[in-house]
Order: sequence, then C-alpha cells, then structure tokens
Amino acid sequence: MRLSRYFLPTLKENPAEAQIVSHRLMLRAGLIRQQAAGIYSWLPLGHRVLTNIARIVREEQDAAGFHEILMPTIQPAELWKESGRYDDYGKEMLRFTDRHDRELLYGPTNEEMVTDIFRACVKSYRDLPILLYHIQWKFRDEVRPRFGVMRGREFLMKDAYSFDLDAAGARRSYNRMFAAYLRTFARLGLKAIPMRADTGPIGGDLSHEFVILAETGESRVFVHADLVARDILAEAVDYEGDLQPLVDSWTSLYAATDEKHDPAAFAALPEASRVEARGIEVGHIFYFGTKYSGPDAMNVTVQGSDGKPVHPEMGSYGIGVSRLVGAIIEASHDEAGIIWPESVAPFRVALLNLKPGDPAADALAGELYAALRAAGTEVLMDDRDERAGVKFADADLIGLPWQVLVGPRGAKEGRAELKRRKTGERHELDKAAILERLLG
Amino acid sequence: MRLSRYFLPTLKENPAEAQIVSHRLMLRAGLIRQQAAGIYSWLPLGHRVLTNIARIVREEQDAAGFHEILMPTIQPAELWKESGRYDDYGKEMLRFTDRHDRELLYGPTNEEMVTDIFRACVKSYRDLPILLYHIQWKFRDEVRPRFGVMRGREFLMKDAYSFDLDAAGARRSYNRMFAAYLRTFARLGLKAIPMRADTGPIGGDLSHEFVILAETGESRVFVHADLVARDILAEAVDYEGDLQPLVDSWTSLYAATDEKHDPAAFAALPEASRVEARGIEVGHIFYFGTKYSGPDAMNVTVQGSDGKPVHPEMGSYGIGVSRLVGAIIEASHDEAGIIWPESVAPFRVALLNLKPGDPAADALAGELYAALRAAGTEVLMDDRDERAGVKFADADLIGLPWQVLVGPRGAKEGRAELKRRKTGERHELDKAAILERLLG
Repeated sequence: MRLSRYFLPTLKENPAEAQIVSHRLMLRAGLIRQQAAGIYSWLPLGHRVLTNIARIVREEQDAAGFHEILMPTIQPAELWKESGRYDDYGKEMLRFTDRHDRELLYGPTNEEMVTDIFRACVKSYRDLPILLYHIQWKFRDEVRPRFGVMRGREFLMKDAYSFDLDAAGARRSYNRMFAAYLRTFARLGLKAIPMRADTGPIGGDLSHEFVILAETGESRVFVHADLVARDILAEAVDYEGDLQPLVDSWTSLYAATDEKHDPAAFAALPEASRVEARGIEVGHIFYFGTKYSGPDAMNVTVQGSDGKPVHPEMGSYGIGVSRLVGAIIEASHDEAGIIWPESVAPFRVALLNLKPGDPAADALAGELYAALRAAGTEVLMDDRDERAGVKFADADLIGLPWQVLVGPRGAKEGRAELKRRKTGERHELDKAAILERLLG
Repeated sequence: MRLSRYFLPTLKENPAEAQIVSHRLMLRAGLIRQQAAGIYSWLPLGHRVLTNIARIVREEQDAAGFHEILMPTIQPAELWKESGRYDDYGKEMLRFTDRHDRELLYGPTNEEMVTDIFRACVKSYRDLPILLYHIQWKFRDEVRPRFGVMRGREFLMKDAYSFDLDAAGARRSYNRMFAAYLRTFARLGLKAIPMRADTGPIGGDLSHEFVILAETGESRVFVHADLVARDILAEAVDYEGDLQPLVDSWTSLYAATDEKHDPAAFAALPEASRVEARGIEVGHIFYFGTKYSGPDAMNVTVQGSDGKPVHPEMGSYGIGVSRLVGAIIEASHDEAGIIWPESVAPFRVALLNLKPGDPAADALAGELYAALRAAGTEVLMDDRDERAGVKFADADLIGLPWQVLVGPRGAKEGRAELKRRKTGERHELDKAAILERLLG
C-alpha cells in the first residue's frame, strides 16, 4: 500500500481524553475514532489489526472443533425473561421497543439465544456434543466508559457455547477451550495465564480468567514462574485426546489475581518461582451445568440413550476481540509508539522513501516495494512529500515490525537501512540482503 | 468436515411462514433460524455462504482502491439532526436513549458518520480522493418484514463512500465502483445489469441499481440482450485508467425496471435484442455531490489548491450482503433444493458414504475425503447413520456443486459416482478419475 493513497490520520499531539497508553496510541496512530462515549469507528489500520486478531481467534476455535455461527445483535426480551436474567443486567443492558412496541435489547451476551437455537434443532443425545461460537458486536451500557476499546460500550467479542450430555462431557469441552485459549493468546504474542476466577453474572462453579501480563495492567497478579516461561506453541495439542493432563499441568501451579491471592501459599514457593506482575483480563471461560437449560430456566432437554429426557450440561467461553487490540498495545509499546507482534501487525514492513523525487531513492524504494509485494509480504510504503523526521516518527508510532529506510545517499550505492522496531537494531544492507532478511 | 460432528439442522417439511423459495430453502437447508420478526441467526452452513460473499465483495472493493474501515452499529442522533435526515427516516429508524438519556439510533446507513470521520481527519485537497467502505450490520424497522433475509430488519450491508475535490473526480470514483459492482456480481455467479434508478432517501441526481435476473424476482425488467450475454470477467478492468468508455458501453444500451420502462424505446430494438425478465435489486450506487458536505447540511470543507475552502463531492455505494444469499438462491435452485455457484458454496463437494460400517465404502470414502482435503478442497462428508435416500435428499437440498456417492457395491471395485448438482449429470468413475475431475 502507498501511504500517499491510504487513509491514515495520525495525530502529533497526545489527545487529552486518553488516560492510558493504549488509548492514546490508538488515537495517535489513526487506528480508531470515537463516535460517542465508548463507541468507536475502526479506521483502516485499526481495522486490519482487528481482522488479524479475529482470524487467529477463529482458526483456533475451528481447530478445537467448534463451529462458527452468527447470532444477531438484537434479541427479543422474552428469552431473557424466560432465563430469569432480564432484570439481573440492570442499566448495563440497552433496551428498547420496536415500532410495534415489542421489547428488544442489544445483546450483551448470548447464553439465552444459543440455548434457544439448541432446543429448536437438537433432539437426541446422539447429536451431542454441540460446540458453537460466533464473533459479533455486543453492547453494555457502562456508566462510565473509558480506556478506549479496553472498556467500551459497543465491543467485538468471540463467545462460544458447548452442550454436552453429562458433566464429564462438559469437562472435555471446557478443556478443549482451555487449550484453545492458551494457543490463541500465544499466537497473538501474549503471555496469558489461566487463573481460577469468580463466575459473576454468567454463573456456574468452574471458571478461569485468562490474564495477560502487562506493566500497565489494571490489577496485580501472582504467578508461578514456570507458567510464565512455558511455551504452549511448542507443545502438541491433540483435541481428540485427553486434555485433562494438559489442563492440570497449568492449574496445579500457583496463579491468582489480587482478589484470589493467598499470600501464605505464594510465600511457600521458592523465591525464584514467584512472579509478581500486573495483569489484564482477555478471556474468561465458564462451566455452569444446567443453569440455562434446567427446569427453572429455559427447560431444554434431549432424549437420552435410555429414552428419558436429559438437560444438557453447558459452558460458555468469551474472548474480548476489540479489547485485545488495546491489551496487545498495553503489553507491547515504548515511548515512541506501538510495537506490533508479527502475527497481528497491520502491515509487516514500513518502507520509507526518505526523499521522493530523488531518482536513486525512488528506484530502490520502488524495487523493494515490488519485490516484497511479489513475495506476499504486506508493505506500507511512505511515499509522502514529508520531511524524513515526520516519516521516522510516524513509522515508530504505528509500530510495524520492520522498517526499511531508503535515503538518497545510500540508494545511490544500492543500500538502505533495515530496522527492527522492537529492538531498534539497524543494519545498512544492499537490496538482496534486505530481501533475504525479510523473506528468507 | 464430517457431517456427524457438524451442526446442520435440515427440515423435511416446508416451513409454513416462508412465502418465497429462497426463504423456504434457507430454513430447510439449515442456513438460518429466525429469532424475531426479520432478525435471523446464521447457522454454520449459512454463515459460510455469507462469509464467502463478503470475501468476494471485499476483494473487489480493495481492487477498486477503496479502503476498509468499520463504523459502529450505534450512532448518535445529533449527526442526523445536523444533516437534516433525522426525521426523514420515520419509524424505520430504530431509536433509543442510553442510561444517561442521550439519543442514539441503530444505523440504517452511514453517510452522516463517514462525513463526520472525513471532516475530523481530512483538511487538504492533496489528500483527496478519500475512498472508504465497510461491511456492517444495519437495522431498518420494516413495518412488515418478510421474504426471509430478502427483506429483514437486521441485515448485513457493504456501503462505500467517496470524497472528491470536484464533479469530475466524483465521476471517476463513481465509475470505479460501477466497474467493481459488475465484477463482484459476476464473480458471485449472478447476471446483474446496471439500470438507471431513482435516488430515494439518499438523494442526488445520478444513480444506478444493479438488478439480477431471476424468475422469482420482485419486478419486471427490460434489457438489451447484449448486456445479458456480456461476460465482464473476460474483460480487463484498469482502475487507474479511464473507465468512462466501459461505463458508457453499459449505460448506452437499454436497461430499465418496470417503473422506468419506456415501451416505445424498447420496441424500437430488434426483436432478438429484447429481453423481458424478472429482477431483484442487489446493489445501488449514488452520486449526490454536496448534499451532506454542503453548507445546509454538515458544512464540511477542505482547503483547495488556491487556499479557498471547497465542499467535497460525495457518492455512496451499497450492496446487500445478507440479501445476496437469498438472491443467489432465487436465481439458482430447482425442485430439490439450492444449486450454489462454486464461488460461494459453503463446501465444494458433498461426499456421501451411503453405507457407513461397510468396510469397502468406509475405506473408499475415507481415502477420497483425505485426498480432497489434502488438496485444499472443502468437503462435507455425510458419514451419518441414515438411509441413502435421506442422504441423497439432503445433498440435493444443501446444493453443494459436486456430489460423490460411495456405495458398498461400487466401492468393492474401487468406484463411486460423481454427480454435478447443477446438471444432474452422473458418472461412475474410479478414485483417480474422480480426483482428476475435481482437482485437475
């Protein structure tokens, strides 16, 4: 992409309304624009990041055997009256009536609706388990939306739902999602640790929060060092096999948020194993049995193998997709701007032509641009008529993993600088060497 | 995908509420489920089709030089008061207030919001043109939602917006989109003809509807045969070049909907050139100049090359993405069910194991399944414990382009039947020949 034709409205000044670094950087780097309190438009660069995150989330849900559906944003109130949760949500639920005075709401979560789909379509134990997910916009009318997309009102969420015949089956589905979450966050370049958690308004008695470690996190966390060091992507995960040992290997080591912290147990660990850090919640999984399918709620049954009706055992599993954009920035930035992990970067390479109009710079930048694109690498070429200093600052601000700096002097000798955004490391190299480093 | 593990709730009976064939077939084939009047969930098979359509729409928008953004579903009412359209939409606009009594609405279209983004971010004539699109859910509170996704209330739409310095630039942007629409619909397997159209509530004085020909279309259309025969995909479209000759070559030939029909002009065509058919609107493009950017509306300017303020010339361009799922079915089905064009089919091949448990059938089906998947072909294997007749009927109903029928007798000799859904043509072939036909 040529920046001269792109839509990337960066800001030089720090926006006054942004209290945390990710919000500030998202506004400054032209990722988002606020349309109302807690409601944002995603501009091209931000939209690319959001899409990359959603793609990785989707791939790992598919790998875990869940099937993608898409439920609407608007739900009829009657489903929530049936489950008994219509009043629980209070003013956070956005409610309204249509032109025929039917009560509707903008879905804050989808346990009721997916249970309604299940009961209409599934009749026999032989069809279980049913494993579904969707990625959809939700709305929670926060009294005080803030921190940009970290606590917005309209937000993109992946939520998954499992229906099993019994508690053992439900545990297997829970374990699948547990493993999928570990892989998902690792692929996003995040260190996310599962921690025992409260179940809140979703309910149930088994629940884990996935918390990423970030200096600017909202709460303190206490974690065994082995969990921090562990590389889940280096381990094979067989979703058809027994995942309980994998789950146990994570949950048997100490990991707690501030509110669940047990100082005595933590102090009993060897000192080298104790990691105190700050954390941001990015995922939450729940097993809640028959809370929604049971006789006191939506009263859903399938025919069991003995012919008798059985209430399916359910779980639900959320990831805040739009929130992750902010969370990744909180975990990965410096004074100059964002540092995107390769897996979610909006483009992989920033190619800066430092003097458009100079024949050598134009030629070398053009050749590198063509070669990188031909190799399938996403590259944003800064061909604007701007000072080199502006281009350096914008490139650091938007945080693409690699920068190629093409100046007139070096270009005359066929050389440019390759800079790694994360480390600041730079090397002056010829064209072939640059392409070899980026594509090799 | 193994059907035994998939979520595909087909119906044997015709649903009473469905008046048109696409609605009936979408419910029967397990593509959607109604959650409230005009509000649907997309089940796995339907979601795959919706995703395929959106991908093709997106690729052609990108090719035409438009940049993807994503505006929220909820909009502040004040923008619409500023443009003067807040009252125009009447009861079709879903309005509500949040917990702080601020007036909000569920966006039925986005001219106001995109203009707001433009005025916040673009200051100079040098940044023009600005070409943006998004694919987002919209809501129109139809008094009588019907025909399934063809006239729903919550629907997925691609809308694009162009901002140019002058009328000539706006015309170039309009022409880009005109060409992109021709290519988009052709790739979706549709014969869509651009027809001069009214501008309705969007406004402006230049507008074309893209109408697909379908026996069950809602209105009569009258078209020159050359337009119907023309294969736009066989023609090179250079978005950087002058597209006016291409646009003229379409608009100079007769094409009119019933309301715009001029019987005398049509009768003047040679008889062989007159095509009377029925049509469904799937896209609509508008050039409306400064209706939203002008001083009587949102009063947006950029600095012109002479330093004086200029109101940008705008256009907007819609495609009903969810509506297209219904429209494609209206254009492509038979008594037995849906006939998906290859480009949007949820899977490419239905592989029917007609006797699971039979060693030869299991082996041959398993080998074909593995070979097709290894080659990157999407295949849905019917491995259910059901009668062959049920499998035949479901395969025809869901309408994948190819069926491979593996029965125990043929399998013993290493042979299966390859059936093309569209023509019904069948051939008994050995494994290598089947793979050669499907992958060659």
